[in-house]
Amino acid sequence: MGLKHYLPILDWSRTYNRSAFSNDMIAAVIVTIMLIPQSLAYALLAGLPPEAGIYASIAPIILYAIFGTSRALAVGPVAVVSLLTASAIGQVAEQGTAGYAVAALTLAFLSGGFLMLLGVLRLGFLANFLSHPVIAGFITASGILIATSQLKHILGVDAYGHTLPEMIGSILSHLGQINWITVVIGVSATGFLFWVRKGLKPFLKSVGASRKLADVATKAGPVAVVVVTTLTVWFLGLDRTGVRIVGDVPQSLPPLTLPGLSPDLVKALLVPAILISVIGFVESVSVAQTLAAKKRLRIDPDQELIGLGAANIGAAFTGGYPVTGGFARSVVNYDAGAETPAAGAYTAVGLAIAAVALTPLVYYLPNATLAATIIVAVLSLVDFAILKKTWGYSKSDFAAVTATILLTLGLGVEVGVASGVVISVLVHLFKTARPHVAEVGLVPGSQHFRNVDRHSVETSPEVLTLRVDESLYFINARFLEEMVKNRVAEGCSIKHVILMFSAVNEVDFSALESLEAINEHLKDMDVGLHLSEVKGPVMDRLKQSSFIKDLNGSVHLSQFDAWQALLRDLKCDAVQMRSQTPTAKN
Amino acid sequence: MGLKHYLPILDWSRTYNRSAFSNDMIAAVIVTIMLIPQSLAYALLAGLPPEAGIYASIAPIILYAIFGTSRALAVGPVAVVSLLTASAIGQVAEQGTAGYAVAALTLAFLSGGFLMLLGVLRLGFLANFLSHPVIAGFITASGILIATSQLKHILGVDAYGHTLPEMIGSILSHLGQINWITVVIGVSATGFLFWVRKGLKPFLKSVGASRKLADVATKAGPVAVVVVTTLTVWFLGLDRTGVRIVGDVPQSLPPLTLPGLSPDLVKALLVPAILISVIGFVESVSVAQTLAAKKRLRIDPDQELIGLGAANIGAAFTGGYPVTGGFARSVVNYDAGAETPAAGAYTAVGLAIAAVALTPLVYYLPNATLAATIIVAVLSLVDFAILKKTWGYSKSDFAAVTATILLTLGLGVEVGVASGVVISVLVHLFKTARPHVAEVGLVPGSQHFRNVDRHSVETSPEVLTLRVDESLYFINARFLEEMVKNRVAEGCSIKHVILMFSAVNEVDFSALESLEAINEHLKDMDVGLHLSEVKGPVMDRLKQSSFIKDLNGSVHLSQFDAWQALLRDLKCDAVQMRSQTPTAKN
Repeated sequence: MGLKHYLPILDWSRTYNRSAFSNDMIAAVIVTIMLIPQSLAYALLAGLPPEAGIYASIAPIILYAIFGTSRALAVGPVAVVSLLTASAIGQVAEQGTAGYAVAALTLAFLSGGFLMLLGVLRLGFLANFLSHPVIAGFITASGILIATSQLKHILGVDAYGHTLPEMIGSILSHLGQINWITVVIGVSATGFLFWVRKGLKPFLKSVGASRKLADVATKAGPVAVVVVTTLTVWFLGLDRTGVRIVGDVPQSLPPLTLPGLSPDLVKALLVPAILISVIGFVESVSVAQTLAAKKRLRIDPDQELIGLGAANIGAAFTGGYPVTGGFARSVVNYDAGAETPAAGAYTAVGLAIAAVALTPLVYYLPNATLAATIIVAVLSLVDFAILKKTWGYSKSDFAAVTATILLTLGLGVEVGVASGVVISVLVHLFKTARPHVAEVGLVPGSQHFRNVDRHSVETSPEVLTLRVDESLYFINARFLEEMVKNRVAEGCSIKHVILMFSAVNEVDFSALESLEAINEHLKDMDVGLHLSEVKGPVMDRLKQSSFIKDLNGSVHLSQFDAWQALLRDLKCDAVQMRSQTPTAKN
Repeated sequence: MGLKHYLPILDWSRTYNRSAFSNDMIAAVIVTIMLIPQSLAYALLAGLPPEAGIYASIAPIILYAIFGTSRALAVGPVAVVSLLTASAIGQVAEQGTAGYAVAALTLAFLSGGFLMLLGVLRLGFLANFLSHPVIAGFITASGILIATSQLKHILGVDAYGHTLPEMIGSILSHLGQINWITVVIGVSATGFLFWVRKGLKPFLKSVGASRKLADVATKAGPVAVVVVTTLTVWFLGLDRTGVRIVGDVPQSLPPLTLPGLSPDLVKALLVPAILISVIGFVESVSVAQTLAAKKRLRIDPDQELIGLGAANIGAAFTGGYPVTGGFARSVVNYDAGAETPAAGAYTAVGLAIAAVALTPLVYYLPNATLAATIIVAVLSLVDFAILKKTWGYSKSDFAAVTATILLTLGLGVEVGVASGVVISVLVHLFKTARPHVAEVGLVPGSQHFRNVDRHSVETSPEVLTLRVDESLYFINARFLEEMVKNRVAEGCSIKHVILMFSAVNEVDFSALESLEAINEHLKDMDVGLHLSEVKGPVMDRLKQSSFIKDLNGSVHLSQFDAWQALLRDLKCDAVQMRSQTPTAKN
């Protein structure tokens, strides 16, 4: 049982049969054809030689098939992680040097090690520090950055930069190099691919083609563009006019490689590796969960960490670079009918054959074509709807998205996503720093207490009940102390204060000290301090201090009990009725 | 009114009379006598020439008297801030150089500017990010560091270092330089001062002295040590035997100085300046609050920021270094009967006279005596009781204190306090990442619902009520989603799920998406989703989304309403009784 948990392959391989095999094989063929140009393109985006993209799809796919829990996830290079890779290793080595390729291996190794570590420690929930709005903002900004970074290949110019202003500035300053034949190839490839995506299916349907044919034609679009542009370049000898092409790709199985582990390199790449791991994990898990939900299957996020960790370590030793579960390839795999992770293994075999036999065929493939496939793929990631949605619901979430988008575009992917996380956390802390504290009264005819400012409720001038709408911890402890002191100073007739703790989920040591200070203060003023609706875990904790013993009052199970007991003591059941125009029914 | 808010001097000066003047004068004389050796000592601790300590006590005190809100606070150099200053500027300049003194001015200027900015933006609550345990741990560790840093003066050796291992290592490696006469002076001064602090008062009382005399004698202790050791060195010519002395101190009023504002210097000192500001502010405000509470007065933390900011900017332009409200000097000022901030102004006049006329008198004052006064003062800050208290109450607070102490001792004051803040925040976030979710049932005979695991309550197999004990936000949103899905998958007969929101104080955009996902999931399973006890502010927010409209159920004012309505619908009032041995009465 334990082993099966860590090696999910032992689970599904027992029931593997002929029908599953044939479905997996069909899916593998479709995915392999799609992955050849995609892998080359993402390697280009990462600044690596084209074969690195193919190598990064072989060993990782097999390792994920053994350790991963998703049945449809396809692991390999993806756009955002390729961009992050380029940004990270661009800071330690020059593109095109041997050091650059080694740094990519190191990055994959560190990233894999970190994922494994998180998996073993079962810390998958750490990925939740990336909030939905921050992820959405980051992906949108990354899509824009990636598309812009590919413009240089469409124009046939040199350009560098990790931020939008750098990229645009660099492209503008190199406009003199523009190669018009490259522009014609790049623009027509991009235009054609957009049309395949948006216009081909309706067109084929309108001429009476079956839905299946339309689907296949749509997916074959990128392959068609690759074939047509390659043949054009070869036939017309366009490479001699300055059109940049993929060129020689070694005909070989993935080589055995060793990541560089010098302390300087590791130190420089550790933080980027952690960022890449977390972002890759979040992307992969959300794809895997979406696909698993369609078949009512479940994935285990902690085991996913181990699967992705193994895949990345595999990439580090076989000439690859950081990988994760990709959206496009996984959806194609799923739609093509993949039933088990074996489909991934067959894809790996297909790609290995391609690496050995087919690489000469892409010699004349223009870089502009690869850039076109990337641009069309990533622009579908750009989605500004999140701005509108968060604006309508919560200004602080809107601020987090906006900051993430602007910082990612303006200062680069690493700063952008790190700032997004920090901003989300700070926004949350600020919201809890000045908690909502409501004075409550009894809803007539019930045992329920609500805010006096929103409901018509019964109150007493001698008993003040404050419902504290936040866990009490160091950031807001003093706020409550001030608040209670001020409130009691205002109401001269107050004999008892009840703190209603229904929304207090934690009282840390700083807050305990503040409660003790409140208790001392009220004792000096001869006002009782009572607690009601204290939760079990909070009460367990408070009992370990002397606060409950020293309390100048008592603890009541429910607010209604407290209310009745105090009114009985005061011998006054003449309560006031505070009438409010109810602004909200709650 | 507005002006009076920003210039508290306009408030108290209107009622200033002869009695207040005479009380303030007496306090000023006592504080001045105490401050002369203390200011010299703290300048030594900061690595600055002795006069810097006196200059830092003059202009700042006057500026605080104009802008500050506390009537007893005495502003000037303090131990912890002096240590932080030494640590910060030691990284940009060599001690003893002109650059070092200029860096101290810059640090004071940046620190003052930052405090002013916070004050104008009314962001005083930011200081709450330093939790009580972190402050306590930091002060204790700083006390140890400061005392250790002064050992070199007691031994008469050279030694450097900003961390405990560095200091001890450096002292051990310089033991060959030890000057035994210095050791005799230093050890006897330290021993005598400890005895004054602990043994003098009981001794005087036992011989029948009045309480007042005993008090004065205790306070005069440090002055007596200064006088005796200075005379001894002068009389015996001990400076010629290698005993290090204060030496020439310029006879002058505070000079007009300009802080260096080169971009490199500002960049290097900005983060330390922010740390110093926050720590100084926290120390000062807690002293001021303690003293104000004794007279039932109030201070305004945001105006305090402006007062301390002005004081630091004043220090930057008059040859000083970062200052704040000090504990020892403020308590002495208060005890001596100071009634208004004018006492501070008179102290400033006294120190100015001392700076002009008395500095030749301290020529023969040995550094070892100053070190002894520092050691005795800071060891009273060292208090390990916080470790025991937090251990008993909360292991996570204990972890934060321990980490702060160890990191401050091992890696220096800046890393220590910054890590303390980060650790406290992370601990809090981790606690909220996997919230407590209780299944609740009705307490018989009441309208109150409590945890089924802790209380004997009524439940129904068809209605599952989960009380979510945490605000819902990005870090825990997915946790709730998983949790509800798992819980519903287990209970086959469940027809309705009620989420009891009494403890949910916020639902951010990520959590809204999770709630929508839960709603979709339950709708697919034909299970109703209901909310109860949703607070006003949370409901206002939810109504801005389509969640409430799409809810596969309804929102109820109270949990009891929800329970009754659903049981009526199900036409089953046959509820189960779940009996538990109550582990806690709450």
